[in-house]
Amino acid sequence: MDYYLESLRLHEKNRGKLEVKSKVRIKNRRDLSLAYTPGVAEPCRRIHKNPSDLYKYTNKGNSVAVVTDGSAVLGLGNIGAAAGLPVMEGKAILFKEFGGVDAYPICLDTQDTEEIIRTVKAIAPGFGGINLEDISAPRCFEVEKRLIEELGIPVFHDDQHGTAIVVLAGLINALKLTGRQFSETKIVVNGVGAAGVAISKLLMAYGAKAENFILCDSVGTIFKGRTGLNAIKEGLADITNTACLLGMDDPRCKKGGLGDIIDGADVFIGVSKPGLLTPEMVGKMAKDPIVFAMANPEPEIWPDLALKAGAKIVATGRSDFPNQVNNVLAFPGLFRGVLDAGIRTITEEIKIAVAEAIATYLKKPKIDQILPSPLDKKVAKAVAKAILKFKPKSL
Amino acid sequence: MDYYLESLRLHEKNRGKLEVKSKVRIKNRRDLSLAYTPGVAEPCRRIHKNPSDLYKYTNKGNSVAVVTDGSAVLGLGNIGAAAGLPVMEGKAILFKEFGGVDAYPICLDTQDTEEIIRTVKAIAPGFGGINLEDISAPRCFEVEKRLIEELGIPVFHDDQHGTAIVVLAGLINALKLTGRQFSETKIVVNGVGAAGVAISKLLMAYGAKAENFILCDSVGTIFKGRTGLNAIKEGLADITNTACLLGMDDPRCKKGGLGDIIDGADVFIGVSKPGLLTPEMVGKMAKDPIVFAMANPEPEIWPDLALKAGAKIVATGRSDFPNQVNNVLAFPGLFRGVLDAGIRTITEEIKIAVAEAIATYLKKPKIDQILPSPLDKKVAKAVAKAILKFKPKSL
Repeated sequence: MDYYLESLRLHEKNRGKLEVKSKVRIKNRRDLSLAYTPGVAEPCRRIHKNPSDLYKYTNKGNSVAVVTDGSAVLGLGNIGAAAGLPVMEGKAILFKEFGGVDAYPICLDTQDTEEIIRTVKAIAPGFGGINLEDISAPRCFEVEKRLIEELGIPVFHDDQHGTAIVVLAGLINALKLTGRQFSETKIVVNGVGAAGVAISKLLMAYGAKAENFILCDSVGTIFKGRTGLNAIKEGLADITNTACLLGMDDPRCKKGGLGDIIDGADVFIGVSKPGLLTPEMVGKMAKDPIVFAMANPEPEIWPDLALKAGAKIVATGRSDFPNQVNNVLAFPGLFRGVLDAGIRTITEEIKIAVAEAIATYLKKPKIDQILPSPLDKKVAKAVAKAILKFKPKSL
Repeated sequence: MDYYLESLRLHEKNRGKLEVKSKVRIKNRRDLSLAYTPGVAEPCRRIHKNPSDLYKYTNKGNSVAVVTDGSAVLGLGNIGAAAGLPVMEGKAILFKEFGGVDAYPICLDTQDTEEIIRTVKAIAPGFGGINLEDISAPRCFEVEKRLIEELGIPVFHDDQHGTAIVVLAGLINALKLTGRQFSETKIVVNGVGAAGVAISKLLMAYGAKAENFILCDSVGTIFKGRTGLNAIKEGLADITNTACLLGMDDPRCKKGGLGDIIDGADVFIGVSKPGLLTPEMVGKMAKDPIVFAMANPEPEIWPDLALKAGAKIVATGRSDFPNQVNNVLAFPGLFRGVLDAGIRTITEEIKIAVAEAIATYLKKPKIDQILPSPLDKKVAKAVAKAILKFKPKSL
């Protein structure tokens, strides 16, 4: 079946995918007087007197802006925010269908970091949270950091942390099934953009050892002293591939491409490009290796090839193979929980709790089922529930 | 009945008034693959190649941002954009209920003219139109003018033009019922903010003579040479109260307050403060005078007092008296028509066509029914239909 043409027809027939609806009835004069003037003046006055009443009398506490600058849309690259609108509308309806969250797409006519920050801050009063989407690295790191610091509502870059959470969830089950500990697992991350960086950081926060990581970008491995590293990669070079800290010429310092450094790795995590992991490379990994090949739309290696080459567990981003890493397992329940609990900052602890909730949602994970189905709407409920324990005491 | 407490309860029970919903089903893998990845990549690609496809594959063509800076919310004044959110949500649901338009509230955390303009431009790609709301004068004039010039989508400040259109509609019928012509009618406008300016301009565009207007602000009448006039009022002083152009000391130059200049006026239009028009003043107006007393929440004069003092026709902003001037008669149908016709700029001709459509919607207007009921949802259809003739030829 041709998903592309079918999807085009679906979008044209419905003129997009979302609509705005009234939650209250407007049939008679009384309805109009309560929902609008003169009655509406009273909630306005209350909020003016007590700003936190905004959460009581408006939809703010259930609303999220899905904000993009269109600089890294799906695997399509920098196609601009307008062309990204179908993705943002899709994201918005997934928020509602899975998490009961009212999300609205905001496509920005700018790709300037400061202008993005300024605009999101300017429109923030009506929203309960900000979901950043498809903003390219390294700009996305600064945008997210600043908005977290400067806004009083939760801000979450899904391409980073949504992906990282679901990878951690899958890896919790995959390591269990192959008898590994995070602290001893050797991990190769291929692709050091938004997702690669966030995955590495979250796995380290969960207990994976930084010195057991080797990160590769399109040039080769990341190591202390390599040229062409941005600030984020410099920081990662300080803690990973640690033999290089002794000197770039140390024989244990891993330099070169994926083929040169994959030997003995327990886990491969690909957030890069189709076809970059060969069966030969899988063959050089440790016993019962784990492969997360999440390039879109085609993985770094096809699951059947990886399994034939010796992989014990294979996950991809695709719905037509087992073990789909799909952010919809995380973001709807995460925002549901964060909004319900009145949480202002989504900490590493919360992300880990979400990953654990997704992992343990499966009573008996199997090698071809390390993650729940993305269509199982009860996952979001389990995720939201796991977040409630982080509710601030003052509320 | 206490509208204020009832309204508060309604807002609290529903946590606001609007929600975002999916127009497509998400039940199985196929649904997910069409509404989101991988299928969604295709509409993105098409839009990237041909930007006008945005109107074909997304909700842009049916969506309007209801934008406020909260500087002039209802009669509450400058309470800030957050406290204005209940009004913006109310506006948004009226857009949907009456016009089938998906409107979303955008509350701005700034009241700086340039920052408002920059922010609206930055978020415009996803919207098919911009409805400016409750932005104070004179800032609103510059904001609207610049956005009309700099954006390629319709921009409409409802407090100005929505009010002006409905006043014109009511006045068309009121003049007919009292046997007057626009060109000969003497009009006093009390209140020279956003609404007063727009009403004056639209009535002049329709055929009322500028020299037959006297405008009053809180200081007194507007005339050439008066101090404390902003640029907009300076412009109006050049064409109204024209005896003053001969010199401020000309005895026919109308100076002073409402009581000093109301003699012989055919029409009083109040967009000012409660109680400013006394029965004595009505008594000094021409025979069968027409009073539009639209101050909120209490009119410049109560209808029973005005009628007793000799007024032939009285209109207010209130739903509990006949002849309610309610913008909901205009904006939903206006945007419905403008979006359907692919119109980029809402011209004076379009505003006049809308006013005529509202006026002639009543087959037999009466002195206590110069305007249709704000609850009659067929008015919006008539308005939208009247706009179709302005459809650009190139479409």
